[in-house]
Amino acid sequence: MTTQQQSLATFSPEFRIAVELIGKRWTGVILRSMLGGATHFSDFTSAIPGLSDRLVSLRLKELETEGVIERIVIPDKPVKIEYVLTEKGRTLLPVFDAIQSWADRWV
Amino acid sequence: MTTQQQSLATFSPEFRIAVELIGKRWTGVILRSMLGGATHFSDFTSAIPGLSDRLVSLRLKELETEGVIERIVIPDKPVKIEYVLTEKGRTLLPVFDAIQSWADRWV
Repeated sequence: MTTQQQSLATFSPEFRIAVELIGKRWTGVILRSMLGGATHFSDFTSAIPGLSDRLVSLRLKELETEGVIERIVIPDKPVKIEYVLTEKGRTLLPVFDAIQSWADRWV
Repeated sequence: MTTQQQSLATFSPEFRIAVELIGKRWTGVILRSMLGGATHFSDFTSAIPGLSDRLVSLRLKELETEGVIERIVIPDKPVKIEYVLTEKGRTLLPVFDAIQSWADRWV
C-alpha cells in the first residue's frame, strides 16, 4: 500500500464536507459558471437550463455563508448586486478542472 | 476573458452529472475509501463513522450501475464479495486529490 493509499484509507471529515458542498444539487454548476465569469443573478438563470430563481437565490446564500462567494452591493441607481468568488472559491479551480476532464472522458 | 474562462462559462451537463455523482451524500466518502484500498462491505462501515449498512448497500449499487465500481463474487466457502473500482472509478484519483488539497486548506 502506498503512502497516498494509506492517507485515503483514513476517513477525512474535511473531505466529506468539501465534496458534499460542491456536489450539492446545482451548487457545482453555479460555482463553475462563476469561475467562468458569471457575476450577476441573471447570469446564472440564463446560462443554466432548468435552474429556478428560487434555487439560485438559496444556493448563493449558502455559498456566502460558507465563505466561498461574496455578495457585493454597488451603490448605483438602481443599486447593483454582484457575486464574486472569495479566495476560498477561486482555489476550487483545480478541483473543477479535474472534474471536467473526468466528465469529458466518462460521462 | 481567457479560453479556460470561456469554456467554464458554457453550461456542461457532463460536468453537472459528474460533480453531483461524487458529491451525493456518502458517495464521495465511499469512493475515497476504495481509492485507499477498501474492498469489503465491512471496510466501509468500520472505517466511516455514521454510515449505516443500508446506505453503504444503496450507494454501492448506485456506483455499480454507474460503472464506477464492480462487484466481484469469489466462489469460496463461504462465498466472498469484493468491490473494486473500474477504470472509470480509478481515474477519479486526481479529482479526489484536488478536493483533499482544497479541504485541507479551507475546511
